[in-house]
This record gives sequence, C-alpha cells and structure tokens, in this order.
Amino acid sequence: MFVSKASTYAASPIREDDSIADELKKEGKEVIKLNSGDPPKYFKTYSYVIDAYIEALKANKTFYSDSRGIKELREAISARHKRVYGLDVSPERVLVTQGVSEALYFINTVLIGRGRKAVLFAPYYPSYMPYLRVAGGNAVIADCNEDENWEIDIDELEKRIKENKNIRYMLITNPNNPTGAILPRKTLERLATLANDYGIFPISDEIYDELVFEGKITSFSEVAKGMPYMILNGASKTFDATGFRLGYALVPNDDKKSEELYAKMLDLARMRLSVNTPAQYAYAEGINNINEHDKEVSMFRNEIKERVLYVAEDVNKNGYMHAVTPMSAFYVFPKLDMEKLDFKDDREFTKRLLTEKYVQVTRGSGFGKEGHIRIVSLADKGILSDALNRIADFCERHKK
Amino acid sequence: MFVSKASTYAASPIREDDSIADELKKEGKEVIKLNSGDPPKYFKTYSYVIDAYIEALKANKTFYSDSRGIKELREAISARHKRVYGLDVSPERVLVTQGVSEALYFINTVLIGRGRKAVLFAPYYPSYMPYLRVAGGNAVIADCNEDENWEIDIDELEKRIKENKNIRYMLITNPNNPTGAILPRKTLERLATLANDYGIFPISDEIYDELVFEGKITSFSEVAKGMPYMILNGASKTFDATGFRLGYALVPNDDKKSEELYAKMLDLARMRLSVNTPAQYAYAEGINNINEHDKEVSMFRNEIKERVLYVAEDVNKNGYMHAVTPMSAFYVFPKLDMEKLDFKDDREFTKRLLTEKYVQVTRGSGFGKEGHIRIVSLADKGILSDALNRIADFCERHKK
Repeated sequence: MFVSKASTYAASPIREDDSIADELKKEGKEVIKLNSGDPPKYFKTYSYVIDAYIEALKANKTFYSDSRGIKELREAISARHKRVYGLDVSPERVLVTQGVSEALYFINTVLIGRGRKAVLFAPYYPSYMPYLRVAGGNAVIADCNEDENWEIDIDELEKRIKENKNIRYMLITNPNNPTGAILPRKTLERLATLANDYGIFPISDEIYDELVFEGKITSFSEVAKGMPYMILNGASKTFDATGFRLGYALVPNDDKKSEELYAKMLDLARMRLSVNTPAQYAYAEGINNINEHDKEVSMFRNEIKERVLYVAEDVNKNGYMHAVTPMSAFYVFPKLDMEKLDFKDDREFTKRLLTEKYVQVTRGSGFGKEGHIRIVSLADKGILSDALNRIADFCERHKK
Repeated sequence: MFVSKASTYAASPIREDDSIADELKKEGKEVIKLNSGDPPKYFKTYSYVIDAYIEALKANKTFYSDSRGIKELREAISARHKRVYGLDVSPERVLVTQGVSEALYFINTVLIGRGRKAVLFAPYYPSYMPYLRVAGGNAVIADCNEDENWEIDIDELEKRIKENKNIRYMLITNPNNPTGAILPRKTLERLATLANDYGIFPISDEIYDELVFEGKITSFSEVAKGMPYMILNGASKTFDATGFRLGYALVPNDDKKSEELYAKMLDLARMRLSVNTPAQYAYAEGINNINEHDKEVSMFRNEIKERVLYVAEDVNKNGYMHAVTPMSAFYVFPKLDMEKLDFKDDREFTKRLLTEKYVQVTRGSGFGKEGHIRIVSLADKGILSDALNRIADFCERHKK
C-alpha cells in the first residue's frame, strides 16, 4: 500500500460533503450550510480583540514565539482559571496550541500507541476518533443516555473499563458538542474517582464553558484536586474567533504523570516552533479585558440561546425527529424517527437533504451516534426558518 | 511506560538550550542568541504585507477557512510557481499548512509507518528526523560532501538505497539549511532519475529559494516533469514572517500516487479545520504584489548576504574552525577543528559556549553532522562582531 494504514483513519464527517455543497453552489443552488460551528460567519469577532490583534501587527510582533505560547497569554489563561474556577495553575503548565485540534494530536501522540485505548463518550466531537486511530489507538465507547439529558451512565462506564485493558485516557466534552448537555458535578466527581481508581488520565474539553444559557458549568478542575488531569479550551467559540486557530491545554497538577505529559507535549510543540504570534496578543487581551469580555460574551450568549431554542422547538414540532433541549453552545442534535422516515441511515438522510433541499447538516454517526443529525444554529433566524421548512418538507416527502 | 515510545523521539536541538539561556538572562547575563532562524527579530515583516493582514482583520476575515487554504492564496502560490519556474500546478494541488512543520507531520503520517524508511541528507533540518521517527519510521542517511561544497554523492546514495528496503520518500533541502548550499541542476536530475527508478517519492523543501545571493535555484519541479514529487515552501523566511506560521505543499503531477498523497494530507488537514485565516490574506498579497515583493526581498537578501559573508569570513580566520562559504539563506555552518579544541563533541562545545560566553548556537549533531556548529547570521553587525569575538576567545581558552 502506498499510503500508511494510520492515514486511512483520517476523516472529517463535518466537512465530508463540502465538495458536493460547492458543486451545488456553482450550479446556482441556494445552499444553506448548517454543518460547521463557525460563529464568525454570522457574528463578528469582538472589536476590542481585533484592535489588539492590529496593535500587535503594528508593533511587529511577527516573530516565532515561545513554543508554549507567549508569556502574556499563558498568564492570562492562568489568571482566568483562578478567577472563574478558583484553580491554581502555573503559566508553566499552560500549553498554547493551534486550536484544540493540535492538542488532540499531541495528546494522542504522547499517550497512545499500538494496543493502547481511550474512552470516548458517544456522541463525541468527530475528530476525537481519527486523532486516536491515526496514533494507533482504539476507542472504548461509553454511551450517554439520551432519555436522561444525555447523562453519562457511570455503572455502564465502569463495566466497559473493566472489560478493557490498557485504557490510557478518557475524554469528556463539557459542555457537550453536539448535544449542548452539561455534566452535573456529581457525575464529574464519579468520573474523577473512576479515573483515579483505574489509573486513566482524565481530559475535559471545556471549549464551550462560557456559552452556557443559565448559570455556569463545574469545571473538571473543581473535582479533580490533587490528581492528574487535563483541561482543554480555546479562543474559537467564546471569542467568535475560529480563524485565529488558538487553543490551549492545562496540566495543572504536580504529580509525575502530569509533568511527563506536559514535557512530552512541549517537545512536540517545539518541533513546530510556535503558533501564530500576533493572534496570541489578541487572545490575551480578549481574556484580560474583563469588562469588554463580559459585555460581548453575554450579548453573544443571549443571541445563540435564542437561535438554539428556536431550532430545538421547531424540530420537535415537525413530527419526524426529537431533540433534547440544549443547555449551551450552538448545536441541536435531534434523533430521527426512523420508523416514520424512509432512509436506511442518517448518512442517507444528510446526503439527500443536501442534494434535494440544499441544506447541509452533519450525520449523527459522525459523532458515534447513528440515527441523529447535528444542526448548527448560528445563522440568522430568517435563514434558520428557511432551512427548517426545507427539512420539514423533506421529511414529509420521504415518510414511510 | 506512561508515555508512548513514539513520543520519546520528539526533539528540537535548536531550542534545547532555551531554558538555560532564559536562566542566564534572568541572572543579568548578556546572552546573544544565534540559534533560531527568526528574521523578524532583526528585520520587520514587509509593511505592505502587514497592511494586507490588518485589512483582512478589519474585514472580519476571522472564520475557519477552506482546509486546503483560502482560494486566493492557493491561486497566488500556483501563479508564483508558473511565473518563477514555469510550473503548471492547479490551485487544487496546493495545500496550505501551519508552517512547513505541519506539512512534515502530514507527510510522515501518510507515507510512513512501522518498518518504513526515508532518505535524509546530512546535514538536514533537525525536525525532519523526529517527525519521521514519531511516525514510526527510520532514516537512511546519505552524507553530503563538505569538501565539495556540500554536494550530494549520488553513487553513495544509490548504494544506501540498494542496502535498504521499504524507502518511501527522500527529502532534500534546496537551498540548504544549515549549509546555505545550492544543488546543481545535474544533481537534481540524477536524484529525479533515482527516485523514479526505485519508486521513492521525492520531496524538495525550497523555503529559502528567494534568499539566494547570486542567480536563482533550479526548482525540483524543473527536473521532475511527468513524475510524482512534492515541493515545500512558505512565508516564514522570504517574507520575514515566521510568526504567521504559514507554509505550503505542492503535489503537482497527475499520477495516482500524487493524487492519493494529496487526498490523505487533505483528510488530515480537515481534522484541524483550517490554518489562521487573516494571515493567509496577507501572504496572498505578499506574493501577488510583485513590485513591492521584489523591492523588499532584494533589500533583505542583500542585507543577509553581507552578514552571512561577514560571519563566514570571520570564523575562517579564528584558527579553530572552517566554514564552506554559503550561497544562500542566513546560516554559517563551520566544522570545528577538534584536533585543536579540548571538547569531546559539538554538544559540549555549544553548551559551554552558552554557559561561559553567553552565546547560543546550535550543535551540528542536531543536524546529523557531528563536529559542527550552526551560527544564525541575522543579527546586526555589532552583535555579530561581539559574538564572534566571544567565540574566538572561547576557542583560545579551550585549545588543546
């Protein structure tokens, strides 16, 4: 075989139909793309953050930076976690990455290898799987319970852990993409205990933590005191700044495993020298200017809450699907009623929805949850309403 | 073992002494860092490129972009290779990456795996090796001949190829880092023939192609017509824009291998969604505005030529080392005269030069060439002169 076996696992369900969508657009079709969680397509990156970016460029901050990220940004991130979650994390334990994606590549390169495994909770963010498989690993899937607000079934999880040897990490997404669910503190406490008992490294991807509709999440850092763990987060969603490509990993605890993991991730980070430098100054200002931050994020949060609840309510009325009402982020993840619909699976549904009605959503099976679709609910209400009508028509036309 | 075997190969000789240098600075020592090839530390990113970057930010171009890179940039790159090298390459065969480093990660993930090998030519750019090893591969090293302007010994290379099974690619750097050597057309033609004969994918990293002191290089694309190959290049060096983190890979030919390689690299690129978006608009303008480009690059080229030749001349006079005069880029790579110097290897030399004289250079063994050092010659002449005096003093003090 010319290409490696590893590379055959590379995949991206969210973008898999982009070339079909491009073709349809070229033919003059009005395609509505609800597949990519990309807020700057509809909301602007906050102007005070853009101003800081421009200032950094004018000050010629275009050199390679520290491979860990610029000190100013690592200090801002450290202070933020202290302020919001009471966490003491040294800026020396912050690693700035090219989006959370690059952190996933580092994590899997360091913790995984042939024969090693990781626990993913279905539905999971699609890239978790290929990053794990490309690194030579295999997934142990623990299902979330849709009927109970997508809650993790801890007993089921423990059973899966006992059945499998060589599990190296477990990766939760809180708040969740695609479901918008939030994990209760009690669940997090039980996950921390399990991770500790079985020597599994727990990782919590909290990139939507500021986009919660009511109240705030419990960060995994609040239940994991004195044990190894990692937190992932980034600029993309909170700051409407996906195109900056800035994420970060925190490995706060002082144990030997945390130290080793951080050191090896840094070795990999040094091979690519640094991330985009001027964008880091913008992100630091984004975090540090608390007044502007609070004002902008709260406006953004209210907007997306309205759009998400609008979409969730609408799909729950069309008679062919049902969505648990999301508590955060900008996704709706309804289950298709396959007893009423004439499709063999969600892949057929999404592909035909695109080619017949020009609406692009993502299949649930891409998230490890067959029979669902993910609808990105960021567009203006007029566009969302048009898309929802097309979806309802489409279901009517294809009912059994 | 907690961490994977793969991750133990992660390494970065260029940055390995950064923490020692940081400590010395904290103690108030005047450290001169000549280890990192980072022009914006001494030269500014061209103002017309910065202006285009700012314009993109003001126009809210902060969303995720096409995973291949924005169309405008891929078209600019395609047009540039037509203009400079007469190459016909479709923008659909350009992949924009987070520096050439990310391209190396993609290449090794796709072409390498356990038991697979690649040819590297010593001295090589340090990251080539860990990217290859982390992916599970092994290097077949072909030495360049220092006595003949660092020319590749083709017969020696063919011997090495015959001795080894399962060689998947060969990776040349032209112009070279660290030697500044340029490969003659005849050598490139023979490499192309060998690659073809043995079914080895040839890759040419040409990131310094505009920083040649006299005339221009022969691009590998000029000798590889009708066969599979890849060209690597990027914004970092030509545009004094290392902190943009923008590189690219071209896979121009129409054969099945080229197609497969591009497709798999794109699959990996989709997993990280996109590279920094506003920086891409700046890079596109950097390439397209030919007048500004030619003026700025020519000034930059003249400046670095003067500095490089100054350093090469000076080290050749100190009596303890000898450098082949570089033809391009901003490095000088002298061989240490170990018969006169009291060090066991170049590692000891560089470490003690830093701790005793506060000058940070990189050991040749990091480039696969023991007994050498790499001196980055970008600093102002006053700084370079200070560093060269310290190096001469240091050699005097440690003569046998």
